[in-house]
Amino acid sequence: MFGIVVFEGAEELDFVGPWELVGMWHQVHGGPRPVLVGERVATLRCAKGLQVVPHHGFADCPPLNHVLVPGGRGVRSELGNAAMAGFLAERAPQCESVLSVCTGSLLLHAAGLLAGRRATTHWTSLEKLRQMGGVDVVEERFVRDGDVWTSAGVSAGIDMLLAFIASTAGEAVAGAVQLDVEYFPDGCTYGGIERDPRAPRYVRDAGSAPGR
Amino acid sequence: MFGIVVFEGAEELDFVGPWELVGMWHQVHGGPRPVLVGERVATLRCAKGLQVVPHHGFADCPPLNHVLVPGGRGVRSELGNAAMAGFLAERAPQCESVLSVCTGSLLLHAAGLLAGRRATTHWTSLEKLRQMGGVDVVEERFVRDGDVWTSAGVSAGIDMLLAFIASTAGEAVAGAVQLDVEYFPDGCTYGGIERDPRAPRYVRDAGSAPGR
Repeated sequence: MFGIVVFEGAEELDFVGPWELVGMWHQVHGGPRPVLVGERVATLRCAKGLQVVPHHGFADCPPLNHVLVPGGRGVRSELGNAAMAGFLAERAPQCESVLSVCTGSLLLHAAGLLAGRRATTHWTSLEKLRQMGGVDVVEERFVRDGDVWTSAGVSAGIDMLLAFIASTAGEAVAGAVQLDVEYFPDGCTYGGIERDPRAPRYVRDAGSAPGR
Repeated sequence: MFGIVVFEGAEELDFVGPWELVGMWHQVHGGPRPVLVGERVATLRCAKGLQVVPHHGFADCPPLNHVLVPGGRGVRSELGNAAMAGFLAERAPQCESVLSVCTGSLLLHAAGLLAGRRATTHWTSLEKLRQMGGVDVVEERFVRDGDVWTSAGVSAGIDMLLAFIASTAGEAVAGAVQLDVEYFPDGCTYGGIERDPRAPRYVRDAGSAPGR
């Protein structure tokens, strides 16, 4: 079972990108079943206003093989929520892998799960994660350090999940899921973002490569 | 206001990809507000099991500037739902633009909105859309025909929405949203999908281009 954690103010695409890929992997190719886990089973309002209902609360959540935490503006209050840190700290050691998207890595850090790890986050929070200390913050689209996977912002979780599926179930399954969800982006960028000095290193590096 | 229609069995990423981009455009850059619209305001179960609650029902939906319809396995039963076709047929003429992702284009067709238009859909449904007749089906990632935008499967809605924002609000705003959601995909493909003869033409064409 693949648990995806949600909370008030979670960023929608942070968790629905991975949700979709895990769901396709599960329905068509025998992967683990995705479940949405919140502190309580009650309607949550996400960062952009989408309303979702978790399948399980922290107290009744079944055993998980994998757990993923999204980011979003709700992270700020979740950093002070002992129930969130407690759930992650309790469940992570029982999981084969722990993943985060965007500023979800701050919640992993608060639960003590990033000590001595290489990790990343949304580009606007790289400095904040560095300041939390004890973690090697890299500016990659996603990074794997053993059983801990962290991705950059929002949409980067999709790329991370494809790599995760390839690592777990093989390249052929990852390719099949990729074709199912037709994830073949056009690579088009707008407004010269790859030349924006605020952009994370992997974006700026791609911008300086020939052919983009 | 940017209405995103949902129904039982709607594909999660089909509508949450566009939802996220419109939400960011709205919250940070003054774009239209996204609202989720269902036949009734009641919890819906999506194609991969995500549970969402629409903000409005068809009967109490406020005036919309834009309307977007996702696809998913639920499309099959919605094709026989007169309330869905009726809502789309009534609202579309009052909108500045009408959009679909994946097999949402079949629902636009059923509402009479694709007559004489160029359009696309998920690669596994291209033939089905052709058989519906009176529409020029192309194998592009997304296609715009006047005020009607249709995209290929699932994740293709993200690329379409960025182009839509660029067209509506300019390249600089589209770039800002793109950086906000860090949509800078790594372009990695698995299992040689670009050489899969079942893949849509735009994927196969990219596969034969140098450098991919």
